[in-house]
Amino acid sequence: MTLDAAATGRCLDAIRARRPLIHNITNLVVTNSTANALLALGASPAMVEGADEVEEFVAKSAALVVNLGTMSADRAAAMRLAVAAARRAGTPWVLDPVAVGVMRYRSQLARDLLPHAPAAIRGNASEIISLEGRADGMAHGVDSVAGSEAAIAAAQRLARASGAAVAVTGAIDYVTDGSRTVSIHNGDAMMARVTGLGCTATAIVGACVAVESDGFAATVHGLAIAAVAGEIAAARSRGPGSLQLEIYDALYRLDAATLMERVQLQTR
Amino acid sequence: MTLDAAATGRCLDAIRARRPLIHNITNLVVTNSTANALLALGASPAMVEGADEVEEFVAKSAALVVNLGTMSADRAAAMRLAVAAARRAGTPWVLDPVAVGVMRYRSQLARDLLPHAPAAIRGNASEIISLEGRADGMAHGVDSVAGSEAAIAAAQRLARASGAAVAVTGAIDYVTDGSRTVSIHNGDAMMARVTGLGCTATAIVGACVAVESDGFAATVHGLAIAAVAGEIAAARSRGPGSLQLEIYDALYRLDAATLMERVQLQTR
Amino acid sequence: MTLDAAATGRCLDAIRARRPLIHNITNLVVTNSTANALLALGASPAMVEGADEVEEFVAKSAALVVNLGTMSADRAAAMRLAVAAARRAGTPWVLDPVAVGVMRYRSQLARDLLPHAPAAIRGNASEIISLEGRADGMAHGVDSVAGSEAAIAAAQRLARASGAAVAVTGAIDYVTDGSRTVSIHNGDAMMARVTGLGCTATAIVGACVAVESDGFAATVHGLAIAAVAGEIAAARSRGPGSLQLEIYDALYRLDAATLMERVQLQTR
Repeated sequence: MTLDAAATGRCLDAIRARRPLIHNITNLVVTNSTANALLALGASPAMVEGADEVEEFVAKSAALVVNLGTMSADRAAAMRLAVAAARRAGTPWVLDPVAVGVMRYRSQLARDLLPHAPAAIRGNASEIISLEGRADGMAHGVDSVAGSEAAIAAAQRLARASGAAVAVTGAIDYVTDGSRTVSIHNGDAMMARVTGLGCTATAIVGACVAVESDGFAATVHGLAIAAVAGEIAAARSRGPGSLQLEIYDALYRLDAATLMERVQLQTR
Repeated sequence: MTLDAAATGRCLDAIRARRPLIHNITNLVVTNSTANALLALGASPAMVEGADEVEEFVAKSAALVVNLGTMSADRAAAMRLAVAAARRAGTPWVLDPVAVGVMRYRSQLARDLLPHAPAAIRGNASEIISLEGRADGMAHGVDSVAGSEAAIAAAQRLARASGAAVAVTGAIDYVTDGSRTVSIHNGDAMMARVTGLGCTATAIVGACVAVESDGFAATVHGLAIAAVAGEIAAARSRGPGSLQLEIYDALYRLDAATLMERVQLQTR
Repeated sequence: MTLDAAATGRCLDAIRARRPLIHNITNLVVTNSTANALLALGASPAMVEGADEVEEFVAKSAALVVNLGTMSADRAAAMRLAVAAARRAGTPWVLDPVAVGVMRYRSQLARDLLPHAPAAIRGNASEIISLEGRADGMAHGVDSVAGSEAAIAAAQRLARASGAAVAVTGAIDYVTDGSRTVSIHNGDAMMARVTGLGCTATAIVGACVAVESDGFAATVHGLAIAAVAGEIAAARSRGPGSLQLEIYDALYRLDAATLMERVQLQTR
């Protein structure tokens, strides 16, 4: 498959045709916004995080999204069960290593989950550099101090070591499978003023891996969809409040033709 | 009391006059949206779910809403305490059996709560059929595969067995007490693209049972209010993001005259 | 420093220049809205509530916000650890005693946290009166039955006993350090119809104490910013749904000149 805006459009169409069930174990900040973004896009989200339920549910799902924000011991236990069950069931899963490198507990959790073969990993520069293991402490809370380009080499190493497609998002987004690397030049600076849009992008990647077996292509498609919806929404917004609302509307109205016009991919 | 749009208008006016305290134990996706919908409507919502607090609080509340989404062992324990305390205190309570039939843990929980005499139960077709006990597995995650009409007979049996008014929502909503059955022909298809609007409808039923002792009438009123607010909001929306916002505005501005114009009830 | 609208403008500018990391342990209703309000304002919010993580994180943060809504045993344990760690690290912290006086469990928790030297406390009249310890049971769920002026004397006593600046919010907001007392005459009645705007005001006070070492001044600045953003947003809104969105946009666009025009402070 050629990796271009047309392929992203086909991925979007496949999500709408198949309406994949996306199992999310995510943080308390974005539980509602993630569900709304996936519904607006055309997928079928479900938030299931009880240790008594995750194994049963992930086996019925088309993809699993694991997001490490607002971590708790209960949620960590559920994630360990869910990721192992996803691997057994062959359900592709996506990791969002929120604030890895900032707190030891979740850094360790992320390293424990990593051997369970995620299809994709999406983080900011600090998170990807920390997860890859060469350096910690480049973060400012949940935000990255470094630009996304600072993490390209770490992302490539992490992709080769883990087998996952790895995405570093920021003003420019980078996706790599360790050999191929592409950059995505879409989005808007105001997106950093809405909480959890990185988490939303990860969840959209989850919808893409549910319908596209090439994890690298699926990750590119997911980030392109999220960034294009964001830039369309930003053009209609007066601030972060209207931006968040407009993103759902933009995801709902997005079509392959708009992706063809707007997606800016570069192969590095 | 005649069950018509005028009665729904009187119920709305009673909510605004009495501002009933509605105790919600609900899921993580809709905690914020449920509180906002109840506040916009004119009720006084409170989200209290700690096992150390629910018994004390439910005795002070005018109604309790129990919603089984994003289930956890802690929240299940709190629900068991709260429902028993509601029964002791005579506080009417409403059950939303989210994804019952999809996961064994919460199916069992729902069956354990059911003998505690809920005033009303609201679910989609899959949930009502599963809760009634004749069949499982008709769900697609948290959404129903079947149309609401497929669950009318199950709803009638469940109403007779439980003593609750039972509502099945979908493109058309049905409410039954086991002998009477009405259908509500309001709402908009885009409402399925906003997460948790079924949960919102259940919470509004909670506000109605707080001011209307006939559970069947209260359930009809609650669903009619939710569906009319949704259709007014949809007419002002460009997608699910603007729809969610407009629903709060519509609930806030709704009045008896608008209900008289719009509510479409049919007795079956 | 003179306590006037110009000082509030300087505080706002300092938040945007320094982008302080604000550690929030807050309730499930407002997790998303608090993060969005702080981001829109220009601060860097992080929601960290796991008992395994809070001590490490609070030491890296510029301020801590502790909000007692949707209390659970796990979150209570994390708050006890976090508040003690904040004191050790010299991180200023702010207390929002949601529904204290309504339920014994959280009333006791609030009294246990109080000796750990909060920089500021913000509540409604019922909460402040109950926390000060002279009377309980004036609340209607999470809302106050009494107007804010009914709690001025209790707030002054609580400020002297605790060393914190104490704010009572309502139609008029009052802030006292036990000797000085000011009132803020901004905001809009519709703000009571959006869930958690009191919690948002507390979080904004958290951003202010991160950049302003005088807790009394910081509390005045925070409440003035929240109330002015609310009244600007209300003028653009048709109901509580649009109001919530417009508040984020207003916080994002707020500047010192607008504060100079609008802030209405009175010294009592």
